[in-house]
Amino acid sequence: MPELRKDPIVGRWVVVNVENPTLPEEFHLPPFQWRGDKDCPFCYNNEAMTPPEIEAISEQERAPNTPGWKVRVVPNKFPALRIEGDLDKQGIGLYDFSNGIGAHEVIIENPEHYKGLDQLSLEDVGYVLKAYRSRSLDLRKDRRFKYILIFKNVGVQAGASLEHGHSQLIALPMVPKNVKEEVKGAKKYYEFRERCIFCDIIAYELEAGERIVCENDDFLAFCPLSSRFSFEVWIIPKEHLDDYGTIGDVKLSNLAQILKEVIGRLHKVLGDHPYNYIIHTSPVNTDSHFSYHWHFEIMPKLTRVAGFEWGSGFYVVFTPPELAAKYLREVKLEESNS
Amino acid sequence: MPELRKDPIVGRWVVVNVENPTLPEEFHLPPFQWRGDKDCPFCYNNEAMTPPEIEAISEQERAPNTPGWKVRVVPNKFPALRIEGDLDKQGIGLYDFSNGIGAHEVIIENPEHYKGLDQLSLEDVGYVLKAYRSRSLDLRKDRRFKYILIFKNVGVQAGASLEHGHSQLIALPMVPKNVKEEVKGAKKYYEFRERCIFCDIIAYELEAGERIVCENDDFLAFCPLSSRFSFEVWIIPKEHLDDYGTIGDVKLSNLAQILKEVIGRLHKVLGDHPYNYIIHTSPVNTDSHFSYHWHFEIMPKLTRVAGFEWGSGFYVVFTPPELAAKYLREVKLEESNS
Repeated sequence: MPELRKDPIVGRWVVVNVENPTLPEEFHLPPFQWRGDKDCPFCYNNEAMTPPEIEAISEQERAPNTPGWKVRVVPNKFPALRIEGDLDKQGIGLYDFSNGIGAHEVIIENPEHYKGLDQLSLEDVGYVLKAYRSRSLDLRKDRRFKYILIFKNVGVQAGASLEHGHSQLIALPMVPKNVKEEVKGAKKYYEFRERCIFCDIIAYELEAGERIVCENDDFLAFCPLSSRFSFEVWIIPKEHLDDYGTIGDVKLSNLAQILKEVIGRLHKVLGDHPYNYIIHTSPVNTDSHFSYHWHFEIMPKLTRVAGFEWGSGFYVVFTPPELAAKYLREVKLEESNS
Repeated sequence: MPELRKDPIVGRWVVVNVENPTLPEEFHLPPFQWRGDKDCPFCYNNEAMTPPEIEAISEQERAPNTPGWKVRVVPNKFPALRIEGDLDKQGIGLYDFSNGIGAHEVIIENPEHYKGLDQLSLEDVGYVLKAYRSRSLDLRKDRRFKYILIFKNVGVQAGASLEHGHSQLIALPMVPKNVKEEVKGAKKYYEFRERCIFCDIIAYELEAGERIVCENDDFLAFCPLSSRFSFEVWIIPKEHLDDYGTIGDVKLSNLAQILKEVIGRLHKVLGDHPYNYIIHTSPVNTDSHFSYHWHFEIMPKLTRVAGFEWGSGFYVVFTPPELAAKYLREVKLEESNS
């Protein structure tokens, strides 16, 4: 089982691969090459190459672990954390440890190897978002888990190791530092102003207009004023909601629309480019966080993070969000893709 | 002038390049190729290719901006921040802004294009450390600056854009988030225990032994228990000192010895590899921080940071620090290099 260790100075947790450590010579890897769709574990007919599926969305009758699915959720073959066992937290000297209890799942977004999220039908994007919701609701039944992190890595520079479109979910036995900070920031603001900071940001951005990428009845997509990355985009529900897991079907289909559109606009402006997205949502099985407001953060990885960023927590943004938003807003999408 | 913007939720600052923004098509760059030593602005006889030098260390008489130097400090040709002008902080709506006042300097570590820090003589490494000290002491005279960040990027994956050995210095008009967190963590511990947390870590590591890489009279080099990166090494003065700028000459020469040794050991175990190092030290021109303890953090960049890390602030460490330290401690260095 992996081991979790907490930095006593700033409270950052790390997952340490104590069982199956990487040796120095294993870091001398040849430059990364995608394998193409041959023997891809996420393509139809290769279902046996993944661990048995946890759940799947399908429009037809099918047996588990056979083709015919629209979205398929499987355990990560190389999990950062393991689901079996009791949570065992302890302190040794200055340090806090925990065994690496958690869930690590892969959401295979569609059967076609080369299709990005923006190339799926609206309905198929909706299935992906439904799988996120369903896994979030299922995993929170396990009271050991305090946070369910859903994210997507696209491209080698953004940390992807497989080309076929997929997202990941990690259920954690503690609320991670970045989430704590955000939740705390929102709470402090709420206590002081009796308003949600994210709702205030939405109002500010709707009024300013210059950082808006697109919107629909339920969601706003914009480049945040204090973006960390060039062409960073947030998608946020206009209604104050703290928990992605409780999203209803109507909102979910509007979310599918805007997510597909934003990914399509980024693709059109930047070409194939590495990116991550992360769903920021409330912790589970702990105090509730009414002052929080869930949202997607989409972060293109167009430049490298270097010593300055690591040392300071400062980020250098090469394209101001106002200009990035203008490009994204004004680019013409093909009819079928808008 | 660049603009600084503060995220209102977690307090992270970003530097936004509002004057000379990068356009989408400029991110489609061909794969990076080092240029070799031809026309390198950091080699002898190309001094005119950099902005005029700020200071230099030389063992011989020389005119500024001519060869013969051992270490040469110049303004960064593409500065993240600018030194001219008055600091102008303001709030607009939810947001805090500042104009991008600061200094951004390059410390050229030696005249030879292909020499890493570990290949320099002890004396020459000492000159680099002296240049760090001298710039830190000089820049703090400017009361606008609250933090002087000294760091080094080696290799494309760690964000370097020039191959010739160099470090960078950025003087900032505010204490950055990462430093604030560390200083605050140390202070909290100090108030509670009346001891320095870093001193306690040193005692703990000396006792445990298994994460020690090497040591000398004044310094300990070890792989921290809660390392974020495989083969991360910290170098820390055994005496409780909060400010790198006040290091004396004897300690400085022991620091040169251990820094050269650690970089040499990393090089021997990992081969050519990308890394960053950062000097963590006290803020300047602000309340003093007696409870802080300066140190170097050396972070090899052997794997990519992906959505999990960005979303959580968790890190996944593939080689446990105990094992990394064993490799680094046991590797044989050539006589001339130890």
